[in-house]
Amino acid sequence: MPNISQKGLNMPSSPIRKLVPFAENAKKKGVNVIHLNIGQPDIKTPEVALNAVRNMKLDVLAYSRTEGSEAYRTKIAAYYKQHEITVSAEDIIVTTGGSEALSFVMGAIMDQGDEIIIPEPFYANYNGFATNNGVTVVPILSSIENNFALPPIADFEKVISAKTKAILICNPGNPTGYLYTKEEVEELAQLAKKHDLFIIADEVYREFAYDNKKHHSILSIDGIAENAIMVDSVSKRYSMCGARIGCVVSKNKELMQAILKFAQARLSPPTLAQIASEAALETPNNYFTAVIEEYVSRRDLLIKGLKEIPGLTVAEPSGAFYCIAELPVADTDDFAQWLLESFELDGNTVMVAPASGFYATEGKGKNQIRIAYVLEEKELVKAITILKEALKQYPQT
Amino acid sequence: MPNISQKGLNMPSSPIRKLVPFAENAKKKGVNVIHLNIGQPDIKTPEVALNAVRNMKLDVLAYSRTEGSEAYRTKIAAYYKQHEITVSAEDIIVTTGGSEALSFVMGAIMDQGDEIIIPEPFYANYNGFATNNGVTVVPILSSIENNFALPPIADFEKVISAKTKAILICNPGNPTGYLYTKEEVEELAQLAKKHDLFIIADEVYREFAYDNKKHHSILSIDGIAENAIMVDSVSKRYSMCGARIGCVVSKNKELMQAILKFAQARLSPPTLAQIASEAALETPNNYFTAVIEEYVSRRDLLIKGLKEIPGLTVAEPSGAFYCIAELPVADTDDFAQWLLESFELDGNTVMVAPASGFYATEGKGKNQIRIAYVLEEKELVKAITILKEALKQYPQT
Ligand SMILES: Cc1ncc(COP(=O)(O)O)c(C=O)c1O
Ligand SMILES: Cc1ncc(COP(=O)(O)O)c(C=O)c1O
Repeated sequence: MPNISQKGLNMPSSPIRKLVPFAENAKKKGVNVIHLNIGQPDIKTPEVALNAVRNMKLDVLAYSRTEGSEAYRTKIAAYYKQHEITVSAEDIIVTTGGSEALSFVMGAIMDQGDEIIIPEPFYANYNGFATNNGVTVVPILSSIENNFALPPIADFEKVISAKTKAILICNPGNPTGYLYTKEEVEELAQLAKKHDLFIIADEVYREFAYDNKKHHSILSIDGIAENAIMVDSVSKRYSMCGARIGCVVSKNKELMQAILKFAQARLSPPTLAQIASEAALETPNNYFTAVIEEYVSRRDLLIKGLKEIPGLTVAEPSGAFYCIAELPVADTDDFAQWLLESFELDGNTVMVAPASGFYATEGKGKNQIRIAYVLEEKELVKAITILKEALKQYPQT
Repeated sequence: MPNISQKGLNMPSSPIRKLVPFAENAKKKGVNVIHLNIGQPDIKTPEVALNAVRNMKLDVLAYSRTEGSEAYRTKIAAYYKQHEITVSAEDIIVTTGGSEALSFVMGAIMDQGDEIIIPEPFYANYNGFATNNGVTVVPILSSIENNFALPPIADFEKVISAKTKAILICNPGNPTGYLYTKEEVEELAQLAKKHDLFIIADEVYREFAYDNKKHHSILSIDGIAENAIMVDSVSKRYSMCGARIGCVVSKNKELMQAILKFAQARLSPPTLAQIASEAALETPNNYFTAVIEEYVSRRDLLIKGLKEIPGLTVAEPSGAFYCIAELPVADTDDFAQWLLESFELDGNTVMVAPASGFYATEGKGKNQIRIAYVLEEKELVKAITILKEALKQYPQT
C-alpha cells in the first residue's frame, strides 16, 4: 500500500472535529445541542445578492477571468474607497473565499522552512495553510488580560530571524474579537517596513466593529505599499459563507503577478457566486446598521451573562462575533466533550470550541474556550444558563 | 522591498498567456480572432442545472459540509455505478473544480522533492500544482505517430525511483484527445501495484468518448483499491466550467482522511454550484447523445480539413475535444504570435495554443499546436482555411 505524504500526516484537524461525533451522539439521545462553536452567521443574506442569482440569464455557466471579472473588481475597489482604502481593480485578485486568498499569499511569499509570525490565539486554519506550504508559524502570545491587544513590538523583534518572511494579523480577530487601534496597525506596519517583511492583514470581519470604534485597514497606512497584503471575503460581511468568494489586495506588483500564476493554475473563482457578490455590493446601508445592532446586543447580553458565572473570565470583544472565555477547569477539551457526553439541562447542552486549537504554543489556552455569538438572544440566554450549571456540576479531576 | 518566494517565481504561466496581449491588439485593429485555444465548451449548460439555481429558496447562503453534502455525494456514487464504478458517498470528497482535487491529491501524497510520472504532452496546469507542492514532474514521451497512446511500460520502469510516488494520466487526454484502452489502463494499474505507487486518473472528460469506444475508469480495475485515485469535474460534462465543482474519489481511507484535512482548511466547496451540480445529475440522456454527436461531427470535419493542409500531421482523437497537430514550422510560439500580429484573411485570424507548454521536456512539441473544437462548424471551417493560407504565407526563418 503506497504511503501518503508527511505533509498529509501533519495537516492539522479542525479544533472541534474530535467533538463532532459526541455532538451527533447527544443529538441521537434526544439532547438539543446549542452550537456556540461555529462561525456561520445566522443572519440573512441580503436579498439583492440572492435575487441576482435567481434572476441570472446565463445559458452557459462559463469560467470567469482568473482574477475575477473586471466589473466586479472595479466595484470592489469603489467599496474600498468608502473604507479609506485607495486601490484599483488591478490591485485585486478575486479568490475562492478568503481561504484561497490566504493559501495563495502563503505560497507566493514563502518557501519551505520560512517563518511567519502570528499573534496567538489565531484562526486555526492558518495552521493548515502553513503546513500545506511547509512554513513554520512563530506565535507571539497575546493575553486575555488586555482583551488580546497587540503584544509589545519588542516581543516580535525577539523572534524575527533571517527566515521570517511575514507577520499575519486578523483584524478584527477570530477568535479574540479584538479590534486593533490605529496605533497598533501603524506600529506593525513600521516593524514590517524596518525588517523588509510582508504584513498580511486578514480583514474578513471589517464591518463588525462596535462601540463606535473604527476599523483601520493595513492598506490605509502610508509608505508600506510594497509590504502590505490584505485578505478579504464576502463570507461574513454579507452572511454568504457558502458563496466562496474572497480576494487578495496589494499594490506590490511582483507579488500580484506571482499570485496570478497560482490563480491561473486553478482557472477561475466560482461564477454564480461572483454574480451574488457583485450584487451584494448594492446592499443598502441599513442592512449593516441592523446587523451591527443585533451583534452588539447579543455581545452585551453574552458578556454580561458570562461575567456572572463564578470563576469565569471573559475578554471584551469590540469586533467580529467571537469571544474567548477562561473557565475554572483544567482542560477545556475534556470539558467540551463532557458537556456533550454527560451533561444536560432540561434536555439541552452546549457545544463550545476548546481554545487550545487556536494557539500554536503547546499547552496554551487549555482553560479557554471560544464562543461565537451567531445565535438568537434567547438561545444565548439558554446557553449561558447551561454553562453556569455545567461548571457547577463538572467533576474536576 | 520584501522578496516573493522562489516557488512564486517558479510558478509556470499558462501556455497562451504570452499571446493574450497580441490577441487583444488584433481585436483592437478590427481583426476577428477565432479562438482554437480554449477549453471552455460553447455547449449549453443543462436547463435542469440552471433552473435549480434560479429556483433556490435559501435565505442564508451557508457553508456546506467540507466534503460536500451527503445528498450530492450519494447521487454522484449512483452516477458512477452507471459507469461501472462501484463507490459510496464516503469514498468521495467534493472539491472546488477538478483543479482543487488535483491540488489536494498532490499535497496528500507527495512531499517536497518527490516525483510524479506523467505521459507528455499533458494538461499544463499539472505543472502549476506540482510546483506549488515542490514536486518534480518526470515526463514520459508519447508520440503523435500512434495518436499519443500509452508509451511502453518499460519507459516508465526506467524512470521509477525511490522518489517516485505516483503516476498521473489524463483519460481521455487534454491536449491529446487520446482515450486509453482497457489493456492500457490495466497495465498502468499493475505497474502502480508492483511499485507501490499511487495511480491518479484525471477523468474529467469521461463522457467524451467517441466511435463507440468505451471509457475505462481507473476505479473499474480490480485489486488496486489502495493505489487508485480518480479526479473528476462537472466542468466539461455539463458545460458548467464556472460552477467550480469537482471531486476526488478513492477507496484508500488513509488518503481520504488526509485529503479531508486539506479540505477542512478551506472550509467548503461552493454551495450554489453544488445545487447546480446535484441537479445536473438529472440531465436527460439525450442531452449527452446530442452533445457527443455534435463533437464527433466537429472532430470529423476538423481532422479531415487539417489533413488536407500540406505538411501538417494530425493525431486522430477519440475522446475529449482537443487534437494535436504538427505543423511545418520550426516554432509554433512564433507562428501563433505571427498569426495574431501579422496575418489576416478577410479580416479573420486564429489563435492557437502552442504545444510546447504541454511538454515538460525542454524543446519538445515546438512544432505542434493544440486545437480545441469547441466552436461551431462554420467557424471551424473558416479556421481551417485561415490556417492553410497562413502556413503558405508564414515567413520561415
Ligand atoms: C479569520 C478568518 N479568516 C478567513 C476565514 C475564511 O473564510 P472564507 O474562506 O469563507 O472567506 C475565516 C472563516 O471563518 C475567518 O474566520
Ligand atoms: C485535463 C483537465 N483536468 C482538469 C481540469 C480542471 O478543470 P476544473 O477545475 O474546471 O474542473 C481541466 C480543465 O480544463 C482539464 O482539461
